[in-house]
Amino acid sequence: MKKSILLFLINAFLFGALVAQQKNNTKLLPSWNEGKAKNAIIDFVNKTTQKGSADYIPLSDRIACFDNDGTLWSEQPLYFQFFFAIDRIKAMAPQHPEWKTKEPFKSILEGNLKAALAGGEHSIVEIVMATHSGMSTTEFDKIVADWIATAKHPSTGLRFVDMVYQPMLELLNYLRANGYKTFIVSGGGIDFLRVWAEKVYNIPPYQVIGSSAKVKYEGNNDNPILVKLPELNFIDDKSGKPVGIHQHIGKIPVFSGGNSDGDYEMLQYTSTRSTPHFGMIVRHTDPQREFAYDRNSSIGKLDKGLNDAAKYNWLIVDMQKDWKIIFPEKKK
Amino acid sequence: MKKSILLFLINAFLFGALVAQQKNNTKLLPSWNEGKAKNAIIDFVNKTTQKGSADYIPLSDRIACFDNDGTLWSEQPLYFQFFFAIDRIKAMAPQHPEWKTKEPFKSILEGNLKAALAGGEHSIVEIVMATHSGMSTTEFDKIVADWIATAKHPSTGLRFVDMVYQPMLELLNYLRANGYKTFIVSGGGIDFLRVWAEKVYNIPPYQVIGSSAKVKYEGNNDNPILVKLPELNFIDDKSGKPVGIHQHIGKIPVFSGGNSDGDYEMLQYTSTRSTPHFGMIVRHTDPQREFAYDRNSSIGKLDKGLNDAAKYNWLIVDMQKDWKIIFPEKKK
Repeated sequence: MKKSILLFLINAFLFGALVAQQKNNTKLLPSWNEGKAKNAIIDFVNKTTQKGSADYIPLSDRIACFDNDGTLWSEQPLYFQFFFAIDRIKAMAPQHPEWKTKEPFKSILEGNLKAALAGGEHSIVEIVMATHSGMSTTEFDKIVADWIATAKHPSTGLRFVDMVYQPMLELLNYLRANGYKTFIVSGGGIDFLRVWAEKVYNIPPYQVIGSSAKVKYEGNNDNPILVKLPELNFIDDKSGKPVGIHQHIGKIPVFSGGNSDGDYEMLQYTSTRSTPHFGMIVRHTDPQREFAYDRNSSIGKLDKGLNDAAKYNWLIVDMQKDWKIIFPEKKK
Repeated sequence: MKKSILLFLINAFLFGALVAQQKNNTKLLPSWNEGKAKNAIIDFVNKTTQKGSADYIPLSDRIACFDNDGTLWSEQPLYFQFFFAIDRIKAMAPQHPEWKTKEPFKSILEGNLKAALAGGEHSIVEIVMATHSGMSTTEFDKIVADWIATAKHPSTGLRFVDMVYQPMLELLNYLRANGYKTFIVSGGGIDFLRVWAEKVYNIPPYQVIGSSAKVKYEGNNDNPILVKLPELNFIDDKSGKPVGIHQHIGKIPVFSGGNSDGDYEMLQYTSTRSTPHFGMIVRHTDPQREFAYDRNSSIGKLDKGLNDAAKYNWLIVDMQKDWKIIFPEKKK
C-alpha cells in the first residue's frame, strides 16, 4: 500500500473517530451548548477516567464538590434559605407577641426587609437562630420539607426547588456516571439542605456539607432526640470550605464548582493538588433568563475569583452563552 | 389428595427450604460460628433487604455504624492510637530537649507510662496535642501511614492492623453486599483513622467519623495547606456519637455495633428509631485468643450496655463462643 493511501486511511479513520466523538458529546450534557466549556468538562472527565491515561484518577479519589447557592440553584434577590426564615417568622409570630416591638422581627412582620437587615450580621444571626433552633432535628426536617414543597420565588413564581440549574443537574449526573462522588459544600445550613438535596440533586445527606449550629443529644427517655441549639458550630464559607471538606470528606477534591468569592478557597484547594484537577465558576450573565451580577453584588460577589481564574485555570461558565436552558423544563 | 399427605408434603418442602437456607448461611460470615448471633444478623439483613418484606428498608436509608476500638480491632492494654502517640514522643524527643524534665513527656521517655498518666485527662490531652498538631494534614497522614505499616503490638507481636477482627471484616462486607453503607463512628482521632481505614476496612474517609482537633486553612501562597491546631474541635464519644452521626451522616443508623458504654448513646439512637433497627455489642470474653474485660475495665468499660441490652434488644456477641477466629489468618 502506498504511503499516501495509508495516511489517507489513517486520517479518514481519525476523522471518523472525531465525528463519532462529537456525536457522542451532543448526547452528553444536553442542556450545555457545544463549545469550549462543555468540551473542557468532557475532556477532563475522559482523561481522568480512561484506564491507561496519564491523568487517570482512581475511583476512590474521584471527589467532586459544588457550592449550592448560585451554583446549583439561584440566590437572588436573597439566599433562598432566608426566604424560609422570613416565612418562619411570620408563621411563628402568634407565639411571639414580643416580636411586634422587637427588631429585627418587627420590621420583618411589617414587610420591611431593608429595615430588618439594618442591624447587619447581628440581625441575620438573630433571625436564623430564632427560626433554626429550639426544636428537634426531626421537627426541623418536617418544617423544611413542608416549606420547600410549596414555597415560591417572589419574582419568578417558580417553586424554589424548580430554580435549580438543569445544566448543573446534568453535570452532577454525568460526573456520577463516571464514578465521581458528588458533594455539596455550601455556606447554607447543612440541616436545611439535607432535607431536599437527596430528592432534588440525588445527593444523600452524608454528601452534604454546610454551616451548622450545635445539636445536643437528649437520651434520658424512651424517645431520644437531637435538639437544635442557638449556638454556632461551623461556618462553611471561604476558608471554612477547605476545612469543611477536610472534616467531612478527608480527601482533596478533584473537581470543584462555585460561583462566588465564598468558593475561592475551595477552588484554590482543589486546583493546587498535585494530580489532575478541575475548577469551574458559574458566572451569572443572563438577566433575561436568570440574573446578572458579579463584582459589585452583595449576594454572590465574584471579584477575586475572576481576577485569579486564569492563574488557576478555572473554567468560567457563561450562563447566557453556555447554557441552552437554565431551569428544568416543566414536565407536561 | 388426603390432607395428611398434603401436610407431609408441605412439611417436607419447608424442611427442604430450611436446610437450603442453613446451607446458604454457612457460606455467609464464614468466621462466625453457627448459632443465635449469626442467625440474628442474617435474618435482619434478609428482612430489611427483600422487596415486599414488611421490614424493607430503602437502599438510601441503609446506614450501618460501627465503633472502632474494641469493635473492629483490639484496644488492650491501651488504645492503639496511644501507642502511636508514645512512639511519636520518642521520635520527636531530640527536637524537644525540654521534655527530659517536663511531665508527662519525661515519664514516657523513661518508659514509665503509669507515672506519665498520673496527671489524668490533662496529661492525655498534652500527649495528644504534642503529637497530633503543629503540622499539615498531609504531613500527619504520612507520619501515620509510616507508623501503621510497621508498628507492632507489645504482647501479641502482631502489627496493629493485623489485630482487626476477621468476623467483623466479614460483617462489614456482608452489609455492603446488601446495600448498606458502612461508617466508622469512633472516639479515636478522625485523621488518624482515615489514613488506613480505606485499605484495612474498605471504608473511605468520608465514611469515617471520629474525634478531632481544629484545622486552619493557609492559602496565602502557591501551596495551600491545612494546619492541625492544638485546639479541640469535637469529641465523638458517648452522647457525642449521635451528634457526630447527625453532623456527618444526617440519617439515623439502621444497624449499629459497639463494645463499650462509649457506644451506648449510638446504640440507643439506633434502637429507638421507628423503623427496623439492629444493635449489637461485641463482648470481650476470650482471654486466650484476645482479651477478657467488661464492667470493671478502665478501657472499653461495658456496664450500662449490659444492663440495658435486653431492654433495647441488643445482640450480645460473645467473642469466645460466636467467633471461629479472631484475627485474620496470615496469608501464606
